[in-house]
Amino acid sequence: MPCSHAVRLHDLSTPALVVDAGMLEHNLATMAAALPGDRCRPHVKAHKTTALARRQREVGHPGFTCATPREALGLAATGLGDDLLIANEVVDPERLAALAGLDNARITIAVDSEATIAAAAAAGLREVVVDVMVGLPRCGCLPGDAGRLADLARSSGLEVRGVMGYEGHVTVIEDTAKRAEETERSMTELLRAYADVGGDIVSAGATATYALNSWATEIQAGSYALMDTTFERLGTPFGRALFVWATVVSVLPGWTVADCGLKSLGMDHGDPTIDDAQVLLCSDEHVTFVPDPDHAVDVGDKMRVWPAHIDPTVAYHEQMHLAVGNEIVETWPVDLRGW
Amino acid sequence: MPCSHAVRLHDLSTPALVVDAGMLEHNLATMAAALPGDRCRPHVKAHKTTALARRQREVGHPGFTCATPREALGLAATGLGDDLLIANEVVDPERLAALAGLDNARITIAVDSEATIAAAAAAGLREVVVDVMVGLPRCGCLPGDAGRLADLARSSGLEVRGVMGYEGHVTVIEDTAKRAEETERSMTELLRAYADVGGDIVSAGATATYALNSWATEIQAGSYALMDTTFERLGTPFGRALFVWATVVSVLPGWTVADCGLKSLGMDHGDPTIDDAQVLLCSDEHVTFVPDPDHAVDVGDKMRVWPAHIDPTVAYHEQMHLAVGNEIVETWPVDLRGW
Repeated sequence: MPCSHAVRLHDLSTPALVVDAGMLEHNLATMAAALPGDRCRPHVKAHKTTALARRQREVGHPGFTCATPREALGLAATGLGDDLLIANEVVDPERLAALAGLDNARITIAVDSEATIAAAAAAGLREVVVDVMVGLPRCGCLPGDAGRLADLARSSGLEVRGVMGYEGHVTVIEDTAKRAEETERSMTELLRAYADVGGDIVSAGATATYALNSWATEIQAGSYALMDTTFERLGTPFGRALFVWATVVSVLPGWTVADCGLKSLGMDHGDPTIDDAQVLLCSDEHVTFVPDPDHAVDVGDKMRVWPAHIDPTVAYHEQMHLAVGNEIVETWPVDLRGW
Repeated sequence: MPCSHAVRLHDLSTPALVVDAGMLEHNLATMAAALPGDRCRPHVKAHKTTALARRQREVGHPGFTCATPREALGLAATGLGDDLLIANEVVDPERLAALAGLDNARITIAVDSEATIAAAAAAGLREVVVDVMVGLPRCGCLPGDAGRLADLARSSGLEVRGVMGYEGHVTVIEDTAKRAEETERSMTELLRAYADVGGDIVSAGATATYALNSWATEIQAGSYALMDTTFERLGTPFGRALFVWATVVSVLPGWTVADCGLKSLGMDHGDPTIDDAQVLLCSDEHVTFVPDPDHAVDVGDKMRVWPAHIDPTVAYHEQMHLAVGNEIVETWPVDLRGW
């Protein structure tokens, strides 16, 4: 919602999620230029915020990727349901029925087994893609099994729109040439499955491979909008647009402490980063760090803490604030949290 | 709230936080017997749930420890505000004013600097403890500075109730004798500060030291109520009472996947644990694991996932379900989340 009165960055209570509006727009425009329209299907799991998804549609992407039923239901409720792909296996009958009951959204869901096909058909869903395991040890059928599952889905009354396969294992490869090579290997597997499945869609990819994956018809990129310190190392043109705004609460001779910790930061990729400082440790509500000698701070000073992984960071917060310089211009509810 | 109709564990949508009611009661009774009444000041940061705090009061503990203003405001709003210690430094004027404005709660807040004392006094708070750094690199003044800060607080119109010092660095020491030795070293520092500060309270401790710390007048234990796989290694009499209930969504020849990942588990202490299985990796909404050969599971099966650290796990969830065997007897909102 637009703010009714001017709020400044330094007035925010902390910890708070803040988005640099200029960097966000740069990231969105860069992706929209590289993969316009339906060639990018932005993944909302990375930001869980319908207001940000609306910006992604405004720059040209008509469809979205979701990880959870609630993400899809939330997008549909705000008129963003034109073409939603739940790129995940769901067998919960109530949640599937809620998706099937939407009259203002097109829902396509991933299936990778007889059980997930049966669950989708029983709930009254109409469209699926066959999820194929292309290297990441997670969901997805073996490539050689995709054709059989597509036949089973069709004989169960489902329309099969194509295949998806997430080459997530390559996103940790920092060397671009090696990442490209592994992406090709994964997509060869996916196209082998696609030959047996048919349909219009070959959905794959990520921020880490958006410029390398020329085999997929659409790229499920999520992190590119907000980015984090981990994805930044991959050398994409996207910049860090999201930080946790924190307040210094304690200064000792050997270290300094700010009010941002394990409950405001996803920690699976390790500690956050602070400019001009070394992070020592995080605890529930604190980050302890050592400022560089010429960058000491005082109690009450506010500062940026850069998360290592945005997805589980955003999921802790109720809202994110959009900043232009030092002014907060909008506050967006993180309204797609939960399942 | 009590459930209006019988809900079974296997009917819950997943991922879901579930508390084993019998183990919770065992843990609460064990602590209440060891440290009755005000000798334990349960830390609500570990569970962020007023309904659970109410059970802690029912077994005899009149006061609570909080990490955030919202935790204290929430406890006060439900009549649990008799004696709330915010064991953390806060300089946010609005939040401090909200605490000072409570007319149904006794609020004591930690201070460790001139700035935190000034902020508390300016907001109209009345009572403080001096927070002393006793080994953990986080907040707290140096022990030799505590007396000066107590004098400053008193001359600022604040009542100084005593000292606190969190020996959090010892909670990682698995050897009990060494943990006891380090606890004594920390408490020697705290008592040195206390001699300069005065008051009635020496607040310290944790689940890891509740039976070792004989110097504190009250122990700020939090994890004991729900526990996790990390604290279990310390050999306390408390048992794991909280798990994330998950559904198997994909089974491949080499691994199995359930719907519980980085957004339903605090990951700072590493991967969760699954009985009769080896966890391979977690991603945003999934845990990939290898079941033991005689414990294979099928798509749709439900299972327990044991978090490595409860505090940041609970903070992801909107509610926790209290289970007696396979029946859900109550559902408690996790109503103290946020700041």
